[in-house]
Amino acid sequence: MVGGSMGVAELEHGGRLQQARARFPGAPEPFIDLSTGINPVPWPVPALPPAAWARLPEPGEEQALRQAAAKAYGVADAAMIAAAPGTQLLIQLLPRLFPQREISILGPTYAEHAACWRAAGSLVREVENASALDDAAAVVVCNPNNPDGRWHSPAMLQALADRCAARGGLLVVDEAFADLEEEQTGCSGLLPHPGLLLLRSFGKSYGLAGLRLGFALAAPERVAAIRAALGPWAVSGPAIAIGVAALDDAAWRRAASVRLAQDAVQLDALLSAAGLRVLGGTRLFRLVQGNGPAWFDRLGQAGILVRCFSHRPSWLRFGMPGNAAAWARLEAALG
Amino acid sequence: MVGGSMGVAELEHGGRLQQARARFPGAPEPFIDLSTGINPVPWPVPALPPAAWARLPEPGEEQALRQAAAKAYGVADAAMIAAAPGTQLLIQLLPRLFPQREISILGPTYAEHAACWRAAGSLVREVENASALDDAAAVVVCNPNNPDGRWHSPAMLQALADRCAARGGLLVVDEAFADLEEEQTGCSGLLPHPGLLLLRSFGKSYGLAGLRLGFALAAPERVAAIRAALGPWAVSGPAIAIGVAALDDAAWRRAASVRLAQDAVQLDALLSAAGLRVLGGTRLFRLVQGNGPAWFDRLGQAGILVRCFSHRPSWLRFGMPGNAAAWARLEAALG
Repeated sequence: MVGGSMGVAELEHGGRLQQARARFPGAPEPFIDLSTGINPVPWPVPALPPAAWARLPEPGEEQALRQAAAKAYGVADAAMIAAAPGTQLLIQLLPRLFPQREISILGPTYAEHAACWRAAGSLVREVENASALDDAAAVVVCNPNNPDGRWHSPAMLQALADRCAARGGLLVVDEAFADLEEEQTGCSGLLPHPGLLLLRSFGKSYGLAGLRLGFALAAPERVAAIRAALGPWAVSGPAIAIGVAALDDAAWRRAASVRLAQDAVQLDALLSAAGLRVLGGTRLFRLVQGNGPAWFDRLGQAGILVRCFSHRPSWLRFGMPGNAAAWARLEAALG
Repeated sequence: MVGGSMGVAELEHGGRLQQARARFPGAPEPFIDLSTGINPVPWPVPALPPAAWARLPEPGEEQALRQAAAKAYGVADAAMIAAAPGTQLLIQLLPRLFPQREISILGPTYAEHAACWRAAGSLVREVENASALDDAAAVVVCNPNNPDGRWHSPAMLQALADRCAARGGLLVVDEAFADLEEEQTGCSGLLPHPGLLLLRSFGKSYGLAGLRLGFALAAPERVAAIRAALGPWAVSGPAIAIGVAALDDAAWRRAASVRLAQDAVQLDALLSAAGLRVLGGTRLFRLVQGNGPAWFDRLGQAGILVRCFSHRPSWLRFGMPGNAAAWARLEAALG
């Protein structure tokens, strides 16, 4: 992997509050971070057994996590689940594990996919329309897409995966934002499929992004290759303990999904009232169009960080406020 | 990385209490795990700020961790430090990042080094004597070595690193067990060196193996390649928060080192009195020779798990008991 030109943290990402504070030194505190798509109301972390910190996770514990993920994501067998310390590390590994001469990425989308495939030497085609994927053997689709929430049906993705498989390639579907959407958003039901690999992010849905936990879902042979590359103990003891319990908590997930759907409606109304055009989104973020740079500065001076896009300066992405105070400050700043 | 023949968790490792309970179903509880080299008295983890769990770690936070590690390990510049979710993942990555046609490993030692280089396609020579390294361009040395505690001086390692560099290769020194030994054990003072890469394990010394935190120390260019391969956010928020505080706690480290040195003397005395010959070790484990299988079973039936070695059946490795009750039970079982 020597010679990859990507440095660390060179891409635009949300969640950079330290940078925001430096840029808006007079902004009121606490800064409200709406620059990410992370659930602002985390699954409640209980006190952990000291062994979760102290001991190396045992094979049976990691297996329990993979079984909980299989159940939560609707996969028949834990042999189709690999657990990792965050989905990002999986995105970093995929080009090394399943090299592709050329890969098409349906964009604009989460930029790390293109960066990681490029760093591994693949020719990356960034296309904006799914019809441009007809000739591709390897494809990355984010479903629903970040930042615009664009969504593709399992039937469309199955056809795409079939074509990739027939050409000896791979379809990666990043379902980072699928957990809290309507049922049937994900396409785990297509597994095992020789040409399909899905990514699921734990931290976003459960509001625990610092924990670092993510999953790859694929046919057992691909999963075995990922697990062998990660080695034993890639996932921390706290992430296993919390992951097992939270993934099993379907009631919390349903309640979070309902609450965030309502929040999305409320946020769209606020943004529209401020003259911003809502382009789309998921229950964890909304994308708007308008005078992006002016709003970014105005909100920043009000102590609210949102996500801007240097290549689409008219766009802004808003995460969900997490409490009444945050809603009130956002409403005031947009007014 | 497809096609690596290593499955997950196929190698012998300590810390498998679930397996031990299945093998010794009548053993008294709690089982005492002496099968690892992890400090049994952890650095005291405080309550963590909720943001450590909830938010993605920011670049400045990871930078603070790397600075704390640079200070603790005696490296001039954080540009020579890469942080990872455990040293194991670094061991997995090194053969991909710095491929070597052939690599010599001074053994017997921690088996994951050989397994990971082999899985990446390197020809691995396992040698038992440092004199067999004279012709090598790429070498792995564990210093002090696990399981026998064998130790090599910085001068010897510098000569070896110089030779590897001159041949366009690499010397990896795994200092997983160096933190709590006498001063001058580590060879971070040789950095930056074009042919030298060091590994440091946080979890063993600080008794927090479940946290998953480890470091690579090398010249900035190698460190940049490792960081680019890991991507942003490879280390969890809790690991950053705990790592920064614990690495800065030199007083705790000194006290732990003194206590464990005394414990090692006490443990050697117990083992010798039981007729086992002490071959060596570090302050976190002791290696003995004797009737390994018989002692393994006898201790297992007493609810004490130690580390056995299928290729050296006369060997057993003992970790340090963590409290008076564990010492008493071990003494009784050895008596």
